Amino acid sequence: MIGVGVIGYGYWGPNLARVAAETEGCSVVAIADMSSAALGRATQRHPLARLTNDWRSLIAAPDVEAVVIATPVHTHYEIALEALQAGKHVLVEKPMTETAEQSERLIEEAARRNLVLMVDHTFVYTGEVQKIREIISSGHVGDVFYYESTRINLGKFQRDVNVIWDLAVHDLAILDYALGAKAVAVSASGAGHIIGSPENLAHITVFFDCGAIAHLNVNWLAPVKVRQTYIAGSRQMIVYDDLQTSEKLKIYDRGVTSDATPEDLYQRHVAYRMGDMWSPHIPIKEALATELEHFVECVTTGATPITSGRNGLDVVRMLECATLSMKRRGHPIDLEPLRVAS
Amino acid sequence: MIGVGVIGYGYWGPNLARVAAETEGCSVVAIADMSSAALGRATQRHPLARLTNDWRSLIAAPDVEAVVIATPVHTHYEIALEALQAGKHVLVEKPMTETAEQSERLIEEAARRNLVLMVDHTFVYTGEVQKIREIISSGHVGDVFYYESTRINLGKFQRDVNVIWDLAVHDLAILDYALGAKAVAVSASGAGHIIGSPENLAHITVFFDCGAIAHLNVNWLAPVKVRQTYIAGSRQMIVYDDLQTSEKLKIYDRGVTSDATPEDLYQRHVAYRMGDMWSPHIPIKEALATELEHFVECVTTGATPITSGRNGLDVVRMLECATLSMKRRGHPIDLEPLRVAS
Amino acid sequence: MIGVGVIGYGYWGPNLARVAAETEGCSVVAIADMSSAALGRATQRHPLARLTNDWRSLIAAPDVEAVVIATPVHTHYEIALEALQAGKHVLVEKPMTETAEQSERLIEEAARRNLVLMVDHTFVYTGEVQKIREIISSGHVGDVFYYESTRINLGKFQRDVNVIWDLAVHDLAILDYALGAKAVAVSASGAGHIIGSPENLAHITVFFDCGAIAHLNVNWLAPVKVRQTYIAGSRQMIVYDDLQTSEKLKIYDRGVTSDATPEDLYQRHVAYRMGDMWSPHIPIKEALATELEHFVECVTTGATPITSGRNGLDVVRMLECATLSMKRRGHPIDLEPLRVAS
Amino acid sequence: MIGVGVIGYGYWGPNLARVAAETEGCSVVAIADMSSAALGRATQRHPLARLTNDWRSLIAAPDVEAVVIATPVHTHYEIALEALQAGKHVLVEKPMTETAEQSERLIEEAARRNLVLMVDHTFVYTGEVQKIREIISSGHVGDVFYYESTRINLGKFQRDVNVIWDLAVHDLAILDYALGAKAVAVSASGAGHIIGSPENLAHITVFFDCGAIAHLNVNWLAPVKVRQTYIAGSRQMIVYDDLQTSEKLKIYDRGVTSDATPEDLYQRHVAYRMGDMWSPHIPIKEALATELEHFVECVTTGATPITSGRNGLDVVRMLECATLSMKRRGHPIDLEPLRVAS
Repeated sequence: MIGVGVIGYGYWGPNLARVAAETEGCSVVAIADMSSAALGRATQRHPLARLTNDWRSLIAAPDVEAVVIATPVHTHYEIALEALQAGKHVLVEKPMTETAEQSERLIEEAARRNLVLMVDHTFVYTGEVQKIREIISSGHVGDVFYYESTRINLGKFQRDVNVIWDLAVHDLAILDYALGAKAVAVSASGAGHIIGSPENLAHITVFFDCGAIAHLNVNWLAPVKVRQTYIAGSRQMIVYDDLQTSEKLKIYDRGVTSDATPEDLYQRHVAYRMGDMWSPHIPIKEALATELEHFVECVTTGATPITSGRNGLDVVRMLECATLSMKRRGHPIDLEPLRVAS
Repeated sequence: MIGVGVIGYGYWGPNLARVAAETEGCSVVAIADMSSAALGRATQRHPLARLTNDWRSLIAAPDVEAVVIATPVHTHYEIALEALQAGKHVLVEKPMTETAEQSERLIEEAARRNLVLMVDHTFVYTGEVQKIREIISSGHVGDVFYYESTRINLGKFQRDVNVIWDLAVHDLAILDYALGAKAVAVSASGAGHIIGSPENLAHITVFFDCGAIAHLNVNWLAPVKVRQTYIAGSRQMIVYDDLQTSEKLKIYDRGVTSDATPEDLYQRHVAYRMGDMWSPHIPIKEALATELEHFVECVTTGATPITSGRNGLDVVRMLECATLSMKRRGHPIDLEPLRVAS
Repeated sequence: MIGVGVIGYGYWGPNLARVAAETEGCSVVAIADMSSAALGRATQRHPLARLTNDWRSLIAAPDVEAVVIATPVHTHYEIALEALQAGKHVLVEKPMTETAEQSERLIEEAARRNLVLMVDHTFVYTGEVQKIREIISSGHVGDVFYYESTRINLGKFQRDVNVIWDLAVHDLAILDYALGAKAVAVSASGAGHIIGSPENLAHITVFFDCGAIAHLNVNWLAPVKVRQTYIAGSRQMIVYDDLQTSEKLKIYDRGVTSDATPEDLYQRHVAYRMGDMWSPHIPIKEALATELEHFVECVTTGATPITSGRNGLDVVRMLECATLSMKRRGHPIDLEPLRVAS
Repeated sequence: MIGVGVIGYGYWGPNLARVAAETEGCSVVAIADMSSAALGRATQRHPLARLTNDWRSLIAAPDVEAVVIATPVHTHYEIALEALQAGKHVLVEKPMTETAEQSERLIEEAARRNLVLMVDHTFVYTGEVQKIREIISSGHVGDVFYYESTRINLGKFQRDVNVIWDLAVHDLAILDYALGAKAVAVSASGAGHIIGSPENLAHITVFFDCGAIAHLNVNWLAPVKVRQTYIAGSRQMIVYDDLQTSEKLKIYDRGVTSDATPEDLYQRHVAYRMGDMWSPHIPIKEALATELEHFVECVTTGATPITSGRNGLDVVRMLECATLSMKRRGHPIDLEPLRVAS
């Protein structure tokens, strides 16, 4: 039984604590938060857990074998580093850190001590995203042409990060997991409409080495809520609509015929394939439950998580580049090494 | 009765000819196309019109007072210029020309001869876009924050222009008409997935002097057809879905409360307005019919069209800059004067 | 080449004439209508056809081998009978006649003279309904449990028939074609909300010998337009939404597990099957084109149409019973022999 | 502080208990259920409540002032009667009892003892249904022509009642509350597809004295989940879609023009009004919370609940008649006095 300490009991922490408590092989032994109100809510749900407003004491406790961090982003690095240094396994909310450099430092520390460092890229643990990865890696989709995502709604404005770090991070984590390709450059543009607040709208284009292109549309000030992703390959196309209550995933047997010459394309009704559509049934299971089970398994067996520190770093690097490009009205930024494109 | 000559009877020309024939105050006296098959179709629908495969002779005919041009883009300039030089009024399909320079030359020629030069920005003549302009200019929307458009489908690939010139041109024309603001810079990225063909996917961001930002997502290789636009202002938000058979336009009384301090925004459920939604009934009328009536009126009275050569030029300039930026992976291009942003 | 005479050039007649003109193997030689305005429109589209306001002379013409009837329902019987008596093949708009007795008389006349008597049950010729029949008859759906249809919109009120004869007739024709079962009783209720007009809203339940039940919801006074049908069988379920521009047909691998005992059903998440959904691609072809080709084939080869007089009679009989039941607030009517259920 | 005892902690009881615990002015002092597993779940959420498997002892307890009953329908009468006889206020889940006679007996008992008898017609307490009543009673809708509801899904089969008692009860309660009219007759048809189980599909038509007609489509064996209601009046029409996450209610300014003569209706585009659509913003609040607050208020002040025993009786009477009609294939049943329509 792995003793888990949860640091941060604000918006997302209660979900992590609830699921950790329900996951076989671990139990929530301690919860830390700076707010007494938060601790009051915590004790109702986790009456047996120790409560504290001092996260350092939580980390120090011998019965805490693993630490789950759900605090504001700018505190992730310090807390995660101290937890690793104290010999604790770490699961940290996304985005992993504020800078790529910090992520690298955490990866190094975890490696040296043989500890699990896992990042909470929640969407990676949904049945839909796992099915998308399966379809792409099986080759059914063919060469991936593009990934297009719209992730918009009214609210909730974040204080300390712009909309890219809040919403685009989900798509970047999905791309990192499902695409199997290496991002090489980023171009982003955005705008802030509330004086004194960070950008609440952004468009990010990511260029991949395989020729694929990804585009993410994120917005906190939209009239309606949308969570829609299109993925197109040379053979099939996928529509993933996360707001549907069923049939979130649809796979279209559509595209340009494989042997189409450019000339064919101009003769309509010839070169397009308009085939069947298929929507696989995906059993409903909370993504966090799958994620916590995976965390317990990694801590127990020493396996590398599918959302390891390395994946956390990849995503933070793209977030950094996107923010930099956005400040420069779309100026493209090469990802590696980090520099302005010629 | 204005005698109209239609040059080009391929994809769009038949629509222009049909509507011109049904519009009071004008009649189709001649049709030109290089293809005999096209002329065969033309004669069935317009048995009284003269047919020719020589557009120059059509222009020369004394009973042709106005010329409607629906040929491939790269031929617009030459044909329109000769028509103007022959003293004919001109209605030319969008985009007006291949280059801003050509557009300027046409404007000059039309001005010198006191002729109408009108560009077929069809969407400007829909009831929905006219309502959008009315709502924005009345101030109900407040300060416009952004315009976001998705205009994607499977097919039809164009031979001579990329997807920006084919699809984004619609949104640029709508912006030019409805927004009442001046575009200052453009950033675009895109990709082509068919060897030997122009880009079939693009994302264009347009920055306006008033602080508004527009983003256009256009794609010929999408799994589903989408025609969706979001416009957000400081007071209201608009959703325009052109594929709905009714209620294409919805106006949301939503946003951030006018007196919200940045601090308020972080206290959820406080600073957002989630008000009523309203969908004005817009009588169904074919946009082309409204457009041709306007053309007849301009020719008759000498009035300047709401989609004049000047508007055609504005749009072509944005198309040029977007294409240039796309070639450079999103590098922002200043609109005026045309140069690379520092 | 079969010479076709079209009688009735009002709302639906022009469609039949247009498609007949485009169908290989037949040509429109004459058109009859009582209205000069209608004949004026006819001559524009069919300049080579003779025009007349006397349908009897059209029937008498030797070059008219087949007659297409698109006049008001109450005139179908008289015109069709005279056409058959004159030795002409007949295609008559739905519903075939005003009474079952009239339909029987037409069938008899056509049989005696070896003439084709076909009824224009248009939906039977759509790719979707043909696919539904194929799926049901292949056994994939299993035993059919029910057919549920909603066919509502605002307008258009008919003068001479109630909403059942105008809208429910479509579903009754689909059921007659696709279900392969025998209707045994009908119960219907309805209401009229416009003084002096027939019922504009009705609900019809049809009971079949196989145990299946059909329910049709038809309405001329609805806030929105809906064309939606659910078909459930013991193995699969079908959703058919005719207003979708694509994916009109969806087949769900859902139901109660075949070996479920009643007891199982009360233990949730056990006895239900929630499987994949599949939407077959159905090439777009106008139903009327398929129908006219079939008519030409039947006239040429003597084959019995899939929507023969017999099918027309079956549908008229159900319409009669439904109307009778509606007058009696849902009192069930046995179909054969026609009498009030005990 | 009103002491509440909850009897029945299966599917719905936990919701009632949770909300009762959160409602100001009352507290959950005792919970009864026959299942130890249910009581185990109850103690986790309500650690301070007494638990018992003997509902009679719960009723007898002096600190229990009001009893909330969420047991199977066939037990409602006995438990509610004993609770009233013991001088306790009663809130009972819908449907109130198995027979109208039982409901009448409970109403009598409550009246004699001056106790509150309230039925849990939950939908009546939603913001949407309250808005519908407001719009109808304000006269904006005009004369109500009809109410049409589709309430279908896959599962969950009930053991002891047919689908009418499980699903149609919601619409009957809404009609009872919002329409302000008196039901005079019912016709219903239905079918059961699982051997040994009650009917899982039904269509119910209710005729009202004002001329309005209601039709309810309920189904446990449907391919998709639908919760959709259309209400049409002489002036406006309402669409209520409970599965939308926002804009559940849409009001259409559509209909037949008030001064339309029957003759006008046949001249299209003349007599229809196609006006604006409006969707009022309705703040999100759990219906049960509104309901429990109302119960507390009625117990405290002696006011009559808006879903009183009388309303429970009206609904049960319609349920009885519908079931009777369904057994007779749609034979219409007069509501008062309860007898077969001539």
